[in-house]
Amino acid sequence: MPISYLTHLKCPKCGKTYDADKVTQLCLCGSPLLAQYDLESARKALKKSDLANREPSLWRYREILPVKDDKNIVSLGEGMTPIIPLKTIGPKLGLNNLYLKDEGIIPTGTFKARGAAVGVSRAKEVGIKALAMPTNGNAGAAWSIYTARAGIKCIIVMPEDAPEITRNECAITGADLYLVNGLISDAGKIVGRAVAKHSIFDASTLKEPYRIEGKKTMGLEIAEQFNWEVPDVILYPTGGGVGIIGIYKALKELQSMGWIGEKMPRLVAVQATGCAPIVKAWEEKKEASVFWENAKTIAFGITVPKALGDFLVLQAVYETNGCAIAVADDEILKAQVDLAAAEGAFVCPEGAACLAAASKLREQGWIGADEKVVILNTGTGLKYPDTVQVELPVLKPEEDVKI
Amino acid sequence: MPISYLTHLKCPKCGKTYDADKVTQLCLCGSPLLAQYDLESARKALKKSDLANREPSLWRYREILPVKDDKNIVSLGEGMTPIIPLKTIGPKLGLNNLYLKDEGIIPTGTFKARGAAVGVSRAKEVGIKALAMPTNGNAGAAWSIYTARAGIKCIIVMPEDAPEITRNECAITGADLYLVNGLISDAGKIVGRAVAKHSIFDASTLKEPYRIEGKKTMGLEIAEQFNWEVPDVILYPTGGGVGIIGIYKALKELQSMGWIGEKMPRLVAVQATGCAPIVKAWEEKKEASVFWENAKTIAFGITVPKALGDFLVLQAVYETNGCAIAVADDEILKAQVDLAAAEGAFVCPEGAACLAAASKLREQGWIGADEKVVILNTGTGLKYPDTVQVELPVLKPEEDVKI
Repeated sequence: MPISYLTHLKCPKCGKTYDADKVTQLCLCGSPLLAQYDLESARKALKKSDLANREPSLWRYREILPVKDDKNIVSLGEGMTPIIPLKTIGPKLGLNNLYLKDEGIIPTGTFKARGAAVGVSRAKEVGIKALAMPTNGNAGAAWSIYTARAGIKCIIVMPEDAPEITRNECAITGADLYLVNGLISDAGKIVGRAVAKHSIFDASTLKEPYRIEGKKTMGLEIAEQFNWEVPDVILYPTGGGVGIIGIYKALKELQSMGWIGEKMPRLVAVQATGCAPIVKAWEEKKEASVFWENAKTIAFGITVPKALGDFLVLQAVYETNGCAIAVADDEILKAQVDLAAAEGAFVCPEGAACLAAASKLREQGWIGADEKVVILNTGTGLKYPDTVQVELPVLKPEEDVKI
Repeated sequence: MPISYLTHLKCPKCGKTYDADKVTQLCLCGSPLLAQYDLESARKALKKSDLANREPSLWRYREILPVKDDKNIVSLGEGMTPIIPLKTIGPKLGLNNLYLKDEGIIPTGTFKARGAAVGVSRAKEVGIKALAMPTNGNAGAAWSIYTARAGIKCIIVMPEDAPEITRNECAITGADLYLVNGLISDAGKIVGRAVAKHSIFDASTLKEPYRIEGKKTMGLEIAEQFNWEVPDVILYPTGGGVGIIGIYKALKELQSMGWIGEKMPRLVAVQATGCAPIVKAWEEKKEASVFWENAKTIAFGITVPKALGDFLVLQAVYETNGCAIAVADDEILKAQVDLAAAEGAFVCPEGAACLAAASKLREQGWIGADEKVVILNTGTGLKYPDTVQVELPVLKPEEDVKI
């Protein structure tokens, strides 16, 4: 029976450690906390070949996930999303080894399911009965769904402009859902006040330590799916940045376990020109970002003016010799259409941003023609109907199509 | 290297056989054709244990799928959808072993991806360059997506009332999309005229023989996921009926290969009271159904007034001692909400219909309390935003949530 090798929580800023089995939010210094494992024991307990007989979900990496008792696992079958070769559009853009990791094929239709599955499971394990969070839509939907399954009360605050379908997802589970006439930062302040006043657990991005453990499984899967030879470049649409932080953490853990070699993929933080605080910080070689005023982009999921984990995102980029790059909304929309027409993949604008960014970085020579490149699509295009503009002929039953 | 053991096509009505490598539609007698395999050789070539090392997609059953050459496989990573235990709502309904096979977690968000992946792959293999089909939305979306990936021209005709998101899916791939002011039967007539006039391949339900081969993988997966001990009952939302026909075909093939024993699950065809031709036929012990006038239900995907394969659906139900049952739209909507709130699964109305039907059959005593029961959810709730009615409080940034 596989077990978790979770040991404690540690602050990546000041180094202070915390008991993982107590309910904990941020470090006293204000930094997010990261889960730590006894990787040496995990390495001895788990062989690569053990994975073949495990179910195709993120729970296959049980030993380096934080949930200790199986009975606390709250799962809807999330994980092991496909990696799809882009053999048509890749070579057209001069990228001969381009792949799409498709996080649209997961419960709730976005990668947020990973963070919610692991975060909610661990919340259940440490005894949390109610939690609150601000969201741009998809995270709130995922946490509503998984808390419903766990029997945990859930309070969600989201901007009025967030994708409408995500409201429905929250509402149908019976979560307490509020809209705010503002941005996610405004929703965050409302949640902050509620949490302070009512002693509810704050499940905001990186304010609890386990969402990132769910997100890191994207990195574990990429390594496994490429047979433990990591790709050269991974492009990731970066809002709160938990995904890119998680992927980096996963790869470092796999290195510690000796499952991958010294080579790291160059991690690329992709943002939209309408909200690019990480890109600005990277260009200025800063260690943290500055609040981005008047943030606005069609890629709603990455409209995050100032991420709590910005310094960890930048660290992942710097330490892997990666980069940060912004693309415009019209480039995003064009990439979305081009990808669907060439490859049949209907991705969200955030995923399309990565394709546009890969194309630019190839043009600039930053990516070589034969390098192995993975773009992360964080969600299905189904959740963003408004990005597709279409005028259609309406026939009467007796009329004919025109060929 | 695994190969396909496809041998020929056979008419289940008159027994006439056809060369599988030629482009073929219906039998001369008007019946759909079914793909046949050399199951004895497949049994020798493939061991159950071989599956562990194959990727978690429907292509793991390569030997009993019709595509001969790997290079013709058109895949977006479809299949091996999770089976989710319903441990909260199941016992509430008196069903102690209730499971959900969740086909929402698949490219395009519905089970139609299976038929499209295999159908389009085989169309590519036999050299088809253009195809046309009528659709209630989801099948058209899936075939648009997979034909785009295959480089095959695709003409789609769908009712104006079909779910809007499915239009976008077709349109973004560049398919030729037409709406019709009528039902799928009207769309079918338009396609029929186009096919006759322009010598295009007709990809209508069961008018080509390979979509069913994709759908049958649901049956193969259920058997594998339950460790080759089939459940007692499978409930399936039945429109065109390809899924239930496919599941039955799969189980018969597994029996021939000796991979499962003599026990068959009782197959239940679930329909809506607003369009229940199969239920009517079953109640009257008929072998075929009669066109259902004024068909209308919120479960749009099963609004099929007369299915070409109705006799095969009824055969699957009769031969497994199954049944056919209709549920009302209000029962469907209630089941959808109940399931989301209790289990965190946001299913489509067609999937919800199966939960409502399972509950009814338990009440009637037709299903026993401890029987192992699988309900098929054919798609994600994300594609049907209109089924969720919600009124929400809108806060100003300075306002507080009410707890």
